[in-house]
Amino acid sequence: MTAGKGSIVKAGEAMGFKQLFDDDSSTYTYLLWDPSTKDAIIVDPVDIQVDRDLKEIESLGLNLVYGVNTHAHADHITGTGLLKTKIDGFQSVISDASGAKADIKIGPGDKIVFGSRSISVRATPGHTEGCLSYVADDESFVLTGDTLLIQGCGRTDFQGGSAEKLYNSVHSQLFTLPDETIVYPAHDYKGRTSAKLGDEKKTNPRLGEGKTESDFVEIMKNLNLSYPKKIDVAVPANMRCGVPDVE
Amino acid sequence: MTAGKGSIVKAGEAMGFKQLFDDDSSTYTYLLWDPSTKDAIIVDPVDIQVDRDLKEIESLGLNLVYGVNTHAHADHITGTGLLKTKIDGFQSVISDASGAKADIKIGPGDKIVFGSRSISVRATPGHTEGCLSYVADDESFVLTGDTLLIQGCGRTDFQGGSAEKLYNSVHSQLFTLPDETIVYPAHDYKGRTSAKLGDEKKTNPRLGEGKTESDFVEIMKNLNLSYPKKIDVAVPANMRCGVPDVE
Ligand SMILES: [Fe+2]
Ligand SMILES: [Fe+2]
Repeated sequence: MTAGKGSIVKAGEAMGFKQLFDDDSSTYTYLLWDPSTKDAIIVDPVDIQVDRDLKEIESLGLNLVYGVNTHAHADHITGTGLLKTKIDGFQSVISDASGAKADIKIGPGDKIVFGSRSISVRATPGHTEGCLSYVADDESFVLTGDTLLIQGCGRTDFQGGSAEKLYNSVHSQLFTLPDETIVYPAHDYKGRTSAKLGDEKKTNPRLGEGKTESDFVEIMKNLNLSYPKKIDVAVPANMRCGVPDVE
Repeated sequence: MTAGKGSIVKAGEAMGFKQLFDDDSSTYTYLLWDPSTKDAIIVDPVDIQVDRDLKEIESLGLNLVYGVNTHAHADHITGTGLLKTKIDGFQSVISDASGAKADIKIGPGDKIVFGSRSISVRATPGHTEGCLSYVADDESFVLTGDTLLIQGCGRTDFQGGSAEKLYNSVHSQLFTLPDETIVYPAHDYKGRTSAKLGDEKKTNPRLGEGKTESDFVEIMKNLNLSYPKKIDVAVPANMRCGVPDVE
């Protein structure tokens, strides 16, 4: 008989992590990997940055498994469709609740495993009905998509958005994580790359200490945001997990 | 480029689990596995039951990776030494704090990964200084070794035992898990195979509700247990992870 496959992940051993930025849509893309096996995932890739991403992947020696979206974006086209044409066996992943097409549909409580590391899935609807957040296996960080931004949050006036749902998602699914957990959002428009969750719990001007659900609903009602520039192009493309349409 | 290795573990997908019993020492041995990949570990195997274990492993189609001990046992000889002679690449695992020899030494916060499933390690000294408990990745169960037994606990008068330490291990590391978590101990002498942790928190006659640390120390002082039958044979063998000595 021959032994199976396993490993020991030592206490405190950090997951491989790289944050990348798309200037055009102010989108953060994340590479996460098992430092031993180099099995990796990419979260929220942007179509026009796929060449950059592939160079990073090659120089880090990663074996990409999945392209995971936090939701069907309205401001850029996902890179998962293009990545599928470049990497044999690579699969796209999105929430079942998004209604979008992808190789794999996931929901709350699922785990996305790469090598011996993983992220776990929390349902955080509100910006869209299908928004997910992803918690690192050691709770050292959370990818919040457009649900919780640094000192802000995603808009709730398009794509089945709901201020009430977003408020409850943040309070029940994100603010229940440890204060030390690092928030990595899908966007930032002011050069901030991360925040401590404990700081957002206290000082987020829309969702932090002292803000009630009805305060939040009122704030979101009065934002007077303009129509999202790329929504009419990006959403249809993202509902089939990016271009090219690879079915 | 070719994709790496990963998987999706769906919410609620149970780990493969089988409990086995050695009549001679009243020891429970556990087989745990990833239902998709069949990668598996065995916890607290008993030397005289290795043939039975191998038959189980074969009939379940498992690929055994590790033989993990909760501690250096005094009442039976571990089967990990024998299993190493039967399975190519199979490795023995025990706590660093045990002082015993093994292929891999682990400590609190480490994770033992098999396929895409894992157990996490908690230090629960008291029965011995090196006792560990193992929590399933979904917290559905905990393997408590001789730290917490059903309506009882391991003795604390040999092998560097300490009633104070055992009391604090149980309260800080085990009773902090959910009430629904199932306790699977290393032994039972009355035919009980498992207990709900919530019931032990309430009704364990030594450690449950209302019992203080000093109550517990007093109880353990007055047990008047006989000298462990096999300790002089078993402990030296287990300090080198069982016979044959395979270094
Ligand atoms: Fe968005
Ligand atoms: Fe023991």
